[in-house]
Amino acid sequence: MGMVGGSLEAFIGAVHRRGAMLDGEIELVCGAFSSDPGKSKATGEALYLPADRVYGSYEAMIEREKALPEGQRMDFVTIVTPNFMHFPPARMALRNGFHVVSDKPATLNSEEARELKKIVEKTGLIYVLTHNYTAYPMVKEMKYLIKTGDIGDIRKVIVEYPQGWLFDLLEATGQKQADWRTDPVRNGAAGGVGDIGTHAENLAEYVTGLKIKELLADLTIFVPGRRLDDDANMLLRFEGGAKGILHDSQIAHGEENDLNIRVYGSKGGLKWRQLDPNTLVRTDQVKGQTIIRTGVNAKSPGAAAHTRQPAGHPEGYVETFASIYRNFAMALRARMNDKAALGAATGGLGQENASGTAYDSEVYDFPTIDDGLRGMLFIDTVLESSGNGAVWTKFKQ
Amino acid sequence: MGMVGGSLEAFIGAVHRRGAMLDGEIELVCGAFSSDPGKSKATGEALYLPADRVYGSYEAMIEREKALPEGQRMDFVTIVTPNFMHFPPARMALRNGFHVVSDKPATLNSEEARELKKIVEKTGLIYVLTHNYTAYPMVKEMKYLIKTGDIGDIRKVIVEYPQGWLFDLLEATGQKQADWRTDPVRNGAAGGVGDIGTHAENLAEYVTGLKIKELLADLTIFVPGRRLDDDANMLLRFEGGAKGILHDSQIAHGEENDLNIRVYGSKGGLKWRQLDPNTLVRTDQVKGQTIIRTGVNAKSPGAAAHTRQPAGHPEGYVETFASIYRNFAMALRARMNDKAALGAATGGLGQENASGTAYDSEVYDFPTIDDGLRGMLFIDTVLESSGNGAVWTKFKQ
Amino acid sequence: MGMVGGSLEAFIGAVHRRGAMLDGEIELVCGAFSSDPGKSKATGEALYLPADRVYGSYEAMIEREKALPEGQRMDFVTIVTPNFMHFPPARMALRNGFHVVSDKPATLNSEEARELKKIVEKTGLIYVLTHNYTAYPMVKEMKYLIKTGDIGDIRKVIVEYPQGWLFDLLEATGQKQADWRTDPVRNGAAGGVGDIGTHAENLAEYVTGLKIKELLADLTIFVPGRRLDDDANMLLRFEGGAKGILHDSQIAHGEENDLNIRVYGSKGGLKWRQLDPNTLVRTDQVKGQTIIRTGVNAKSPGAAAHTRQPAGHPEGYVETFASIYRNFAMALRARMNDKAALGAATGGLGQENASGTAYDSEVYDFPTIDDGLRGMLFIDTVLESSGNGAVWTKFKQ
Amino acid sequence: MGMVGGSLEAFIGAVHRRGAMLDGEIELVCGAFSSDPGKSKATGEALYLPADRVYGSYEAMIEREKALPEGQRMDFVTIVTPNFMHFPPARMALRNGFHVVSDKPATLNSEEARELKKIVEKTGLIYVLTHNYTAYPMVKEMKYLIKTGDIGDIRKVIVEYPQGWLFDLLEATGQKQADWRTDPVRNGAAGGVGDIGTHAENLAEYVTGLKIKELLADLTIFVPGRRLDDDANMLLRFEGGAKGILHDSQIAHGEENDLNIRVYGSKGGLKWRQLDPNTLVRTDQVKGQTIIRTGVNAKSPGAAAHTRQPAGHPEGYVETFASIYRNFAMALRARMNDKAALGAATGGLGQENASGTAYDSEVYDFPTIDDGLRGMLFIDTVLESSGNGAVWTKFKQ
Repeated sequence: MGMVGGSLEAFIGAVHRRGAMLDGEIELVCGAFSSDPGKSKATGEALYLPADRVYGSYEAMIEREKALPEGQRMDFVTIVTPNFMHFPPARMALRNGFHVVSDKPATLNSEEARELKKIVEKTGLIYVLTHNYTAYPMVKEMKYLIKTGDIGDIRKVIVEYPQGWLFDLLEATGQKQADWRTDPVRNGAAGGVGDIGTHAENLAEYVTGLKIKELLADLTIFVPGRRLDDDANMLLRFEGGAKGILHDSQIAHGEENDLNIRVYGSKGGLKWRQLDPNTLVRTDQVKGQTIIRTGVNAKSPGAAAHTRQPAGHPEGYVETFASIYRNFAMALRARMNDKAALGAATGGLGQENASGTAYDSEVYDFPTIDDGLRGMLFIDTVLESSGNGAVWTKFKQ
Repeated sequence: MGMVGGSLEAFIGAVHRRGAMLDGEIELVCGAFSSDPGKSKATGEALYLPADRVYGSYEAMIEREKALPEGQRMDFVTIVTPNFMHFPPARMALRNGFHVVSDKPATLNSEEARELKKIVEKTGLIYVLTHNYTAYPMVKEMKYLIKTGDIGDIRKVIVEYPQGWLFDLLEATGQKQADWRTDPVRNGAAGGVGDIGTHAENLAEYVTGLKIKELLADLTIFVPGRRLDDDANMLLRFEGGAKGILHDSQIAHGEENDLNIRVYGSKGGLKWRQLDPNTLVRTDQVKGQTIIRTGVNAKSPGAAAHTRQPAGHPEGYVETFASIYRNFAMALRARMNDKAALGAATGGLGQENASGTAYDSEVYDFPTIDDGLRGMLFIDTVLESSGNGAVWTKFKQ
Repeated sequence: MGMVGGSLEAFIGAVHRRGAMLDGEIELVCGAFSSDPGKSKATGEALYLPADRVYGSYEAMIEREKALPEGQRMDFVTIVTPNFMHFPPARMALRNGFHVVSDKPATLNSEEARELKKIVEKTGLIYVLTHNYTAYPMVKEMKYLIKTGDIGDIRKVIVEYPQGWLFDLLEATGQKQADWRTDPVRNGAAGGVGDIGTHAENLAEYVTGLKIKELLADLTIFVPGRRLDDDANMLLRFEGGAKGILHDSQIAHGEENDLNIRVYGSKGGLKWRQLDPNTLVRTDQVKGQTIIRTGVNAKSPGAAAHTRQPAGHPEGYVETFASIYRNFAMALRARMNDKAALGAATGGLGQENASGTAYDSEVYDFPTIDDGLRGMLFIDTVLESSGNGAVWTKFKQ
Repeated sequence: MGMVGGSLEAFIGAVHRRGAMLDGEIELVCGAFSSDPGKSKATGEALYLPADRVYGSYEAMIEREKALPEGQRMDFVTIVTPNFMHFPPARMALRNGFHVVSDKPATLNSEEARELKKIVEKTGLIYVLTHNYTAYPMVKEMKYLIKTGDIGDIRKVIVEYPQGWLFDLLEATGQKQADWRTDPVRNGAAGGVGDIGTHAENLAEYVTGLKIKELLADLTIFVPGRRLDDDANMLLRFEGGAKGILHDSQIAHGEENDLNIRVYGSKGGLKWRQLDPNTLVRTDQVKGQTIIRTGVNAKSPGAAAHTRQPAGHPEGYVETFASIYRNFAMALRARMNDKAALGAATGGLGQENASGTAYDSEVYDFPTIDDGLRGMLFIDTVLESSGNGAVWTKFKQ
């Protein structure tokens, strides 16, 4: 793995490194950690990389790694830069034969995403988008229960993503995250909608298996002086007649990161909260509520494959990244026809999933460029709807 | 108190009787419990009423009670019939000099509500609408904290009222509640919106002190064969710039009666759930969450006045009706200039509120015909918005 | 109903009055509310009693009520005085032919309790002890599930009653409750153990149907200057081999009134908390946790008979008193052979229990002098154990 | 790191490997993963170790690694075998100059523990015991708040560790964990007490800073045919006068792994549950409850140093092992006087703790052989107490 971005003070770089290493399948071998060469060098040292594998730019990294012999050079590029810097290294990596793992969003806008999709399809390389929240075991379980008809036909979906960290003009204090995330140039045209609204959209479509057909979005900038939306309320209409609500906020004062979803069907309902990720609630008008827990009474192969500990040993955020990296590693090996190694891929560290030795892309799934493009089209649709005064707008294609 | 409706098998009649009696201030002296004379008689007997105070119709009750000497006749009429039968007895009672307590909604439509408001204003009598959820102590606390600036300027309001009891065509089984509540003639033109959406609207405006300026509503009938909306998703815009979401559902499979509200302001947030009514959560990005509880750390006079037990002794639904009846009784006495009796009014049963001997209409408030009319206009606005394809619609005046 | 004690400022008097009236079966007709005649008079007035039914002492009340013609005089006496004043009026009332409802504990010590039991047995009158916590619907459900074998053989019982209100020397401030409850003369020889430990003991034996065989108690006075125990830790051994833990505290800083119980058997477990009384959790190693709720998926006749509202309408503390009074009223009527009235007894107010028209003393049960004596023997056993240095001690007989 | 035990199917081996690798400070370089050479080899392959660093026995590993040049040989030994096999490799490793990280318990009995302590002291090497639960950030916070007087003088401690996995004779089915954990020879003389009771004891003494002075334990074997205790109820007396309850169970049907602790002092209380590890509840009789959360309002350097993600990104079990390994790595470097590297040690992966560049053994603490010996003495004390009929017994020295 070669990393683009992720210098010492970046939050998401460390998350990716920890996630990639957790299952022992992936090794960091090189990086271009910052556009500031000094920072890049310091990060490389802190990470015990040899000096000659720490690069001053992603271009240099891709070019020089490509020149190394196979087996020695990096196998893929991981991109953990701010949004505007996702597309260029992804494109270059793919063009030079490297698989790509990219933090979300895939690109700065839908045009770039479309182009990236074409490149991925043309090169046949693997492109992974770390839409991590769908990698929680109980999200896999939720998807499975819905798919197998457990709650009947879907009627209503409520998905929320409230945060409170931008309740005042944090960007004015120079806080790094707030600074670039509220800047249209580096973040893209959507603020909260791009950062967290897309997670909500992705989660809703992932668990239900339904596509949003049209939506209506009312975006607001509540904090004076801010340049991008910090709050969004939306109504959704899904293919097949289900309806929904999606709202995200960065000004929900005192909310941490409370992504949650409720889905009601003709035979029951399911509820999940990211802050209590190992619990899934099955609601039922007649039978009452049942608590589904990782390692206890979850039934799906997907939940089993994404659970590393026995019941009662909390798993969290870092494991979602680990699962995406692990699934990517398994897909890579499967592609190499190295079926024998697949058992080892999980068996080495996770006794829970040791049984599932055969690679099953439905069980060991991960988000791709399709999710990336979908997210960008969601943003386009939302911005158009809100820009027109919050009117119903067909989901862009 | 003379009761219209509320025969033995009715749910809401018993709630009103228990609520009225809980504080020992009000006595049931007569009733017209059913349009079926046999049922009315049986109910009267079960309630130990003398036979001559059990009437076959509300008209008979009002006429004959009016003829009784003061001190012996009923002081006011309580109306607990299905919706279409709220307006006629209310009008007749007021015209004959009786105060009125009415279950919600006030009337079947906004025209009737307007007329009722005129009569109330003309007669100067007291009209109480039992919008009971705002009588919970922690709702009083929430209103107080918002009013006194504790969470700053209101930005976002999320109010939800999910139920699941109509997840299938219950009305086809002859279940009484489902039968009339899904019948446009007896229930009014709005289904779930009229029954529970109005509670959500009332709660949101009550706690924030803000009026909804315009809204957009997407109503659905999910259960084939049903005649009225069983699900509603709405976006709200309040006076002053706050925005919001309101959704109600009768098909949220497995949800009991989960009315809840979250309000986020520039300085903090507040969250309350009817299913855990003695708890109010104060959110804060810096200080974290504080749990406010009845009898522990609630600060408002309103919470104190509506709490009957010491901390840790759960209070619930019946107390909300009791509080409305008690507040009405106090207002009645205050009007009679019987100030001396006011202490007794609460002192007899509630040590908690014994201190607040002086009647303060802000503390001992109750919903009136204004709330009733507001609710009917809300329904009109929602139906117009949804009927036009879910478009933004100004709140009707 | 004639009340002994319960003047305006007393907490428990109002609870009893509200509970007695809630179902419309019982009327307060007279009282001796205080040993201070002025207070008694003021209370009577506040409660709208005629002056000649307000007495200066319980002796006067019993004597003069007895002299009134049947149908006019009180049917029973309710005793809501501090502990030392429970026994004398109970004894006198029974000796004069009045049934008795008494707040707990039954008496000041086990000798009095034994004597009271003899009088009750001799007179054949009904004696009701308001050990109210066992009247919650979910406690009835828990008892039923255990009795019908749902969780198999009982192995472990954990019952807790933490409060924090006496974390400092509140009695030194003159606070009335703290004053008499920490006074050995008026409260009895056990402090927290007598006040709340007995509730825990009663609850544990009630739900499991098992008797404590022996126990070991470590009592402490944590607050300097206090005269009675404010904390107790106990180990329990039940008949049949189950083991348990009971602890109560009045110095658990910040705990409201958190009575709770967990019972684990060979086939599952059950958990209940008084602060969330309408919920019962069924634990299972294989099936996971199921949430049992009043009005949703509770199965027992007892839960149904003690539930007044449909699902999702919280019921609480006052309803537990109401249920005991209602059950007592039904027993009284059953005794009068007035079977016809029994349906009315519940049908008048509670649609939920209207079905159960026939009186069933297992379903409509209430605590009696046996529970009262058991509680006093529990206290004796605990004090002996702790006094001997916290050693195993057989439950007194 | 060289690992003893931890073949593919072992639960705890994978936990240690993931924990050790999470922060990028430690590398697995060799192992003796099983007494079965085939299993050891297969594990080594799955973990991508060169064949010549996979050994057939710990003796071979220690001897041959010792012979390797410094910089190439392992730095320390990690022991993740069943209990009876903790002491021999630990002793041999220390005697040969290797630091040791050992899964708990340190040894099979207190004699071995005493001997190990002597060896550790004599060699001056670092010995780490992975009593992992005290490495949660909110446990650090709890310890800090208690130490700095936030809740005043400690009065009452309740610590619980209920599990349900041994509710029936699982060991009879050949399940590996159940098999050796219920076998006195391989597990030691205490069953549940040794496995989980020691965690409870360790947690209670860790957060309070108080030592248990004497205790009384009532142990039970509930499942017929079992050879070791599967349930324990204890009363505790601490130095300085605090009292407590400790209970553990493996037959609490339906409980996952619910380690939890409550501590009440003269000025407030604190509550923590392992199943919701990022939350700490501060109780207060006057101010009510405050929710303390990682990354939000936790105040202690220890919580900060053990938190890897921003607020709202759940962290769990694997991070506790990671923290112990990371702290050990930092201590190792500090000892090497490699102060410069210390910042890097945490800065590389965790932006949260990047501020704390200087090594502070109070902040970056870990359990040692003292905790190990204490745990064995706890077991001795418990067994003696219970063996004598559950009597008060001084904590062994």
